Amino acid sequence: MKTEKILAASGTNLLTRRSFAKPILVQKYGGSSVATADLIKNVARRVVARHREGKAVVVVVSAMGKTTDSLIKLSKEITQHPQRREMDMLLHAGEIISTALVAMAIAELGIPSVSFTGQQAGMRTDSSHTEARILGVDGVRILEELGSGKIVVIAGFQGITADLQITTLGRGGSDTSAVAIAVGIGADECEILTDVDGVYTADPRIVEKPLKMSWCSYDEMLELAILGAKVLHSRSVEIARRFDVPVLVATSYRDAPGTVICSPEKARKEFRVMEEVSVRGIAHQKNVAKISLVDVPDQPGVAAKVFSTIGKQDINIHLIVQAEHRGGKNDISFLVGGDKLPLVRQILGDLVQLVSGARAVVDENVATVSLVGEGVQREPGIAARMFTTLANAGINIDLISTSNLMLTCVIPEDRAEDGVRALHQEFFEKSSTGD
Amino acid sequence: MKTEKILAASGTNLLTRRSFAKPILVQKYGGSSVATADLIKNVARRVVARHREGKAVVVVVSAMGKTTDSLIKLSKEITQHPQRREMDMLLHAGEIISTALVAMAIAELGIPSVSFTGQQAGMRTDSSHTEARILGVDGVRILEELGSGKIVVIAGFQGITADLQITTLGRGGSDTSAVAIAVGIGADECEILTDVDGVYTADPRIVEKPLKMSWCSYDEMLELAILGAKVLHSRSVEIARRFDVPVLVATSYRDAPGTVICSPEKARKEFRVMEEVSVRGIAHQKNVAKISLVDVPDQPGVAAKVFSTIGKQDINIHLIVQAEHRGGKNDISFLVGGDKLPLVRQILGDLVQLVSGARAVVDENVATVSLVGEGVQREPGIAARMFTTLANAGINIDLISTSNLMLTCVIPEDRAEDGVRALHQEFFEKSSTGD
Repeated sequence: MKTEKILAASGTNLLTRRSFAKPILVQKYGGSSVATADLIKNVARRVVARHREGKAVVVVVSAMGKTTDSLIKLSKEITQHPQRREMDMLLHAGEIISTALVAMAIAELGIPSVSFTGQQAGMRTDSSHTEARILGVDGVRILEELGSGKIVVIAGFQGITADLQITTLGRGGSDTSAVAIAVGIGADECEILTDVDGVYTADPRIVEKPLKMSWCSYDEMLELAILGAKVLHSRSVEIARRFDVPVLVATSYRDAPGTVICSPEKARKEFRVMEEVSVRGIAHQKNVAKISLVDVPDQPGVAAKVFSTIGKQDINIHLIVQAEHRGGKNDISFLVGGDKLPLVRQILGDLVQLVSGARAVVDENVATVSLVGEGVQREPGIAARMFTTLANAGINIDLISTSNLMLTCVIPEDRAEDGVRALHQEFFEKSSTGD
Repeated sequence: MKTEKILAASGTNLLTRRSFAKPILVQKYGGSSVATADLIKNVARRVVARHREGKAVVVVVSAMGKTTDSLIKLSKEITQHPQRREMDMLLHAGEIISTALVAMAIAELGIPSVSFTGQQAGMRTDSSHTEARILGVDGVRILEELGSGKIVVIAGFQGITADLQITTLGRGGSDTSAVAIAVGIGADECEILTDVDGVYTADPRIVEKPLKMSWCSYDEMLELAILGAKVLHSRSVEIARRFDVPVLVATSYRDAPGTVICSPEKARKEFRVMEEVSVRGIAHQKNVAKISLVDVPDQPGVAAKVFSTIGKQDINIHLIVQAEHRGGKNDISFLVGGDKLPLVRQILGDLVQLVSGARAVVDENVATVSLVGEGVQREPGIAARMFTTLANAGINIDLISTSNLMLTCVIPEDRAEDGVRALHQEFFEKSSTGD
């Protein structure tokens, strides 16, 4: 995954920022939090409350509810192959609508406010339409308006290229906007307010009593996001990590403590974490497919050939396992998102050709379950408990993959929920079994 | 009514324009013409047909159907007093959506296209939010894209101030955008395509067989527009007149000749108008109220005081008649739009105070009928025929007002339709009665 090249706040910004006494808070509200006029009023009340605490508040908003989906549907009635530039032009209107309405709702509560398009907010991007990368945030105009006592409301998800083309940031774009803006204006805090109230130890739809984490490291959050916990988009976490901006994830519907995504150092200081609990959460992923190349000759460069062919097709790989087999032959297995399987099938013949003599086997009925936590790989006791737990639940482990941050098992898809529940019970519901 | 100060095409524009061989056509499509995906495809087909004729085509579009109304409704659920800047931010999203979709539909037909926001199109305005005046159109970017063979689709109704605030042009804004863009890029033709197929001799909802005019002078159109023919907004006609840009008004639903709004000189040449028919159309206006100040002392400056007081309230006056009365006292009557009556009532006491001794009488049950045509006032025979016709229909004439371009009678509101029908029959349906 590419990372954003955000230029740090420019000299001018820092100057303006320095002359600025109040702490700056950036809040992002997702589409479901601004889906109706009443919800928008609720957002305005929350924002104004933070302003009244003495903070300079910047609000980043997504498009209302299903606006983006409706616009996409409308475009599909016209063409199956819209130009990406025109999709950006179309979709960016959604955030403009919600942004103006939120600004109005704030003013209605008596606090001056101003709405900004991505361009007005200084969100500069490259020209990769529909998935633009952020080049920098020129925060001067935001800081000026904050300085005059206004709450600044910014359309998330959108930016502008050097030659004034409108771009959108792709999936998770508004989260990314919020964190980038927080970096660009040197904000003190950044909050992502959404319909979930934090990061849990497992998916609440599967596990009965998941625990909400008070904090989570950037790296743990990246693993959890990639592995299927849909709380915060990876891009925004990457930017937060790069500039070490703590991000609070919480719900916009009520006052409840959320989860702070931050560095382990900050967590140790702020949350007085004395002894680290190694396993922080359980992630899982169902819509995946496993491709195995069986009986691959054990020659240098074979794997490289395979994955450069796949990489050319813009297919993200979730996991790669190569196991030594027998008689100088290997098995190479990898996981792709289920939506990419048709693409993979198209090049399967080429792949088999590349690795002469191999066979390709596709298995769509797989899932992953993962233990996530800084250092989980280092403690063999954790791996042993994981495998035992799955075995006791009668779940067969197909592949195993580990990193410093996680232990992942590929298991049959129809056992994914059982696996998550069993692991959650083992690692979070037993009382003081210790590691 | 203020007029727009449009700077003529800059040196750069003229240079670019000159290096441009094809004739340039600007077409504007109204909201009802782009209300659905199918209608948008229809617009694209019409636009592409003109492109294939060898023209460089610029398309200006309004928001789809009732989009603007829905956005206003949404804002009212949030506040009854939206900041005007935020209304502009909100509403300009509507045109962005339709513009992107039209560009997609054109590309789907195989012709390269590009959509522009008002800002991208170089539409510069002052900062009067919700009713911004156009300062100029920097057409270079439009001409560049036309030069590369693209059809350029532009969001009407919107512009940008010098400090990058988004503005909208108020009522009739997209018509105004289209004519201003035609001026800014030195277009050869400008067409306003809408749900009416031209300018008629009377409102087709009242008169059974109105005649479609093949042409109409700028001045006649201004009178017809002000007096209630909702074909083309006055602001756009004023710009067209100022820069002498002929504007074709026609329907977007089928191929049918429309009405060309142009100078009488051009009409004489193009339409071989040998002998001028003096009466060109019959306008009427129903939602008006008459205010009469009775027994006003005949002293200098009284009328000035009255109308400067009204002017401060942002109330447009439709007509003023002062009649000498008796014993050094006058009656001053004027008409205002019905929606402004509550405002007028608030200051009625002040007005009476200003003109010591006068009484104020308000009559809401009035309407106007007008004969419009260059020089109608000069020919007494026409006035006589008008008054006789109304008298024969049993319609009492309350006030009479004339200008070089029109004869207007104020009559009872419930007889407005009868008056229009009678006058239309007299002036348009009799065979060769001559003047």
